[in-house]
Amino acid sequence: MRKAAGRTASGRVRGETRRRTLESARMLFNGRGVARVTTRLIAETAGINEGNLYYHFRTKASLVVALFAAFEEEAAGLAAPDGAERHELAPHVEVLRRWFVLTWRYRFLFQDMAAVQAEAPSLRPRLVRLSARLQAETRRSVADLAEAGLIAIPPGFEEPLLANVWIVSSSWIGFLVLNERVRAVRETHLRWGYNQVLSLYLPYLTEPALVALAALPEPSFSGEA
Amino acid sequence: MRKAAGRTASGRVRGETRRRTLESARMLFNGRGVARVTTRLIAETAGINEGNLYYHFRTKASLVVALFAAFEEEAAGLAAPDGAERHELAPHVEVLRRWFVLTWRYRFLFQDMAAVQAEAPSLRPRLVRLSARLQAETRRSVADLAEAGLIAIPPGFEEPLLANVWIVSSSWIGFLVLNERVRAVRETHLRWGYNQVLSLYLPYLTEPALVALAALPEPSFSGEA
Repeated sequence: MRKAAGRTASGRVRGETRRRTLESARMLFNGRGVARVTTRLIAETAGINEGNLYYHFRTKASLVVALFAAFEEEAAGLAAPDGAERHELAPHVEVLRRWFVLTWRYRFLFQDMAAVQAEAPSLRPRLVRLSARLQAETRRSVADLAEAGLIAIPPGFEEPLLANVWIVSSSWIGFLVLNERVRAVRETHLRWGYNQVLSLYLPYLTEPALVALAALPEPSFSGEA
Repeated sequence: MRKAAGRTASGRVRGETRRRTLESARMLFNGRGVARVTTRLIAETAGINEGNLYYHFRTKASLVVALFAAFEEEAAGLAAPDGAERHELAPHVEVLRRWFVLTWRYRFLFQDMAAVQAEAPSLRPRLVRLSARLQAETRRSVADLAEAGLIAIPPGFEEPLLANVWIVSSSWIGFLVLNERVRAVRETHLRWGYNQVLSLYLPYLTEPALVALAALPEPSFSGEA
């Protein structure tokens, strides 16, 4: 009995160490880029010794893969609204806001996708799948909004719009890093990126949608690290 | 006299070797990515020995820098139309077409900008300057088109449009490589990217501009290697 309790407690400690290590890695990757972060620095930041880190994650690549899995899991919750919400503007806009919060939390994936893929080539097919699924959700959103008379896209304009939504959603951080010499992406940047994507839809929103949009509170991105 | 002729002739040979080496490097970088191309392969493809290549370019990085300089020089010719042409649609669209031909010729710069910057970090400020200049030209184009009544952008929509034009212009290749599993970018992809950027402007073009656009011949991207 005592032994079992012991196992559980040490299991809890191990889980907590793993969680803290991942969190430290995520924040360091976000702040400095994957290539410039060593496992030694991650261990230091997490307040554990390197041997302990090594017990959980053999390589930096395995940390990248574990963080990508966490990103995937959170992204799995991002789906176009269902039921009655399908025909309202706000729930669709909320999915966009949540996508930006997510890309913000895992911005190292977007800031330097080439380095991430070089570190962990196995992620490529998973990234392709994720990208395809999110694009399908956006397509479903647009179809629902059209059905509700909230968006009116002329024939032939929808496919270019959907591709541009994805390009801007996944490349806005690179734009800031290059053009604004942004070193650390902050909340104002997040708001900027969100508005860039929203601006792609604006020309196609109908009057009722524009009214509904104007009535929405400013989206909050604060409290995200 | 004979000696001078000899110097000139050998100078011509050196110039030709240099040109052929750069052309081989450009095509290999475009086809396989900078990281996967060795100087040995470049020498082989150019039909010269490695010692000769080394005489012209000490490192792969110096090849990347020389190609970037060529890209810069060609990009210097890309300016918004002047004079009477300022108020016509076609010359502005032609600048966009020429930008796509240019990004196509030097697509390795856009397909894998992180690897390029890792190989030659000195290029970063030059890339930033080039990006700023091209964005300024786009801004001038839009102002001239507005003056001519060819485009009508509501207040507050212009800045997001200009940023999205740059994001899509510089990120469309990455989109294709990831989402369409495109390994080698071809002419049809070039046309696709061009249409993606054009589609950003479409909602804001006035009736006369749409008429002028429909009357333009399909842009040609062929014959580009």
